[in-house]
Amino acid sequence: MSILVVGSIALDTVETAFGKVEDSLGGSALYFSAAASYFCPVNIVGVVGSDFDSSKLSFLKKRGVNFDGMHVESGETFRWGGRYHKDVNKRDTLFTFLNVFEDFQPKIPSQYQKTEFVFLANIDPDLQLQVLDQISKPKLVVLDTMNLWINGKLSKLKEVIARSDILIVNDEETTELSGESNLVLAIEKIAAWGPKALVIKKGHHGALLYRDGAFFFAPAYPLKKVVDPTGAGDSFAGGFLGYLAQSDNLDNRSMRNAIIYGSTIASFVVEDFSFKRLVDLTQDQIDQRFTLFKDMVSF
Amino acid sequence: MSILVVGSIALDTVETAFGKVEDSLGGSALYFSAAASYFCPVNIVGVVGSDFDSSKLSFLKKRGVNFDGMHVESGETFRWGGRYHKDVNKRDTLFTFLNVFEDFQPKIPSQYQKTEFVFLANIDPDLQLQVLDQISKPKLVVLDTMNLWINGKLSKLKEVIARSDILIVNDEETTELSGESNLVLAIEKIAAWGPKALVIKKGHHGALLYRDGAFFFAPAYPLKKVVDPTGAGDSFAGGFLGYLAQSDNLDNRSMRNAIIYGSTIASFVVEDFSFKRLVDLTQDQIDQRFTLFKDMVSF
Repeated sequence: MSILVVGSIALDTVETAFGKVEDSLGGSALYFSAAASYFCPVNIVGVVGSDFDSSKLSFLKKRGVNFDGMHVESGETFRWGGRYHKDVNKRDTLFTFLNVFEDFQPKIPSQYQKTEFVFLANIDPDLQLQVLDQISKPKLVVLDTMNLWINGKLSKLKEVIARSDILIVNDEETTELSGESNLVLAIEKIAAWGPKALVIKKGHHGALLYRDGAFFFAPAYPLKKVVDPTGAGDSFAGGFLGYLAQSDNLDNRSMRNAIIYGSTIASFVVEDFSFKRLVDLTQDQIDQRFTLFKDMVSF
Repeated sequence: MSILVVGSIALDTVETAFGKVEDSLGGSALYFSAAASYFCPVNIVGVVGSDFDSSKLSFLKKRGVNFDGMHVESGETFRWGGRYHKDVNKRDTLFTFLNVFEDFQPKIPSQYQKTEFVFLANIDPDLQLQVLDQISKPKLVVLDTMNLWINGKLSKLKEVIARSDILIVNDEETTELSGESNLVLAIEKIAAWGPKALVIKKGHHGALLYRDGAFFFAPAYPLKKVVDPTGAGDSFAGGFLGYLAQSDNLDNRSMRNAIIYGSTIASFVVEDFSFKRLVDLTQDQIDQRFTLFKDMVSF
């Protein structure tokens, strides 16, 4: 099974305690695709500017990511700049230049309109609705969002949530979205809006899955060195949905394994800047760390 | 096997979103003992003032907590007052009156000096060293502390850590104690000071055990209503050490089960003010929740 992802393709300038990279590959759609590509083919719909060097994408193409849905518009590519604190869980955004992304109107190529697995990366809920209007009967729609849309476009966002199967948000967003400070009550409130499951990302505290009234908790992998946390959430989503699409099974066991595969891939991504750690990452290394995750929670 | 605990016995005034209690039972030694008493006999060494109503302790005495080592001094009992925010993970201390606790000098009764399991609750490291000097060859010393001693008495605290087998601290204290913002590096640094294992409490994010270079993660139980978080850490420690003393086994499996039992009991304690939830709590209820914990991490 292949996945359709609609989201951003960006050039990131990132500074952490371990160094700095400028105009390196980034964006939710790319991080998602890189992670998901370990499990299944991925089709991207997104936009870049005429300044974008497509040769940078060759490692993703080799791994089965298809860029036929990536449009090149005249103008500059979306750029984001951020600086992480010594405590890497905190960061300051230094700049956000939407550039060609500002007028992005996702057009889903006809060959993708019957995709069964869809990831709506963090973009304007109006655009996410446009995507859903162009695809027919997907088996699974997974949705990401952020506080910008929670605060600015809540009613549209709730429409998208109602039309999605799984919502992926972090713990702060869960509170903001629901208005509930207790996480369990917050989750139950959002679940009542429609999605069959919620995945709550808790950064270095791990992730949890809520489904059919039951919880599953996954720790974060304990890393001695987090070089660049950018893309952790999107690569988590990529590993999660990638595994589900590969297994083509949405039972409890698959969902739980998917959470661990998402956590595993995210833990590799943050070990280096941008996509550097993924260039040589093998399936064997992923499976080995998956096994370590199992040991970390066994009792 | 029985446990010796040295710590505070207090009267707490606590305000949360769910109400307020005044002069209710509290203190690290009591919360620890109440939790540990589900697994083994507990002997307390502590001090109260002449205003203390000992009849309040009857439910603990029935459960095998022995108060022969509790001294009554003329003066008032240690009192603490705090107010929790709507987000119960934040609180303000309103007052701390040490009263008779200010001059507390722990004297270990001769019948306790050969105790094999010892819990040094969060008190001045100088007093913790006094306790260790009075006991002979314990099988397991578990140590708790807090930022007050990390900032004010670090060298003494490091002496106690070196003489303890397991250090229990929260994640912030781990950072402060080690000066390392990365939790893995922080843990490895502290482990090099002597303790065989570290238990890191992460509040509503769960707990982790570090032992022989390996990690074990336990989630926190997802509660819809946290009425009063006071005593969660001490009752966690009580369930943890109580289980270890009962099983009289310190292997990897026992340590992991102990973490889950600690988490389980702490999750009950916070469901009501002070010790209210423990008065009727049965071993069956504890075992049922332990089983739910297992399901929450199985994949």
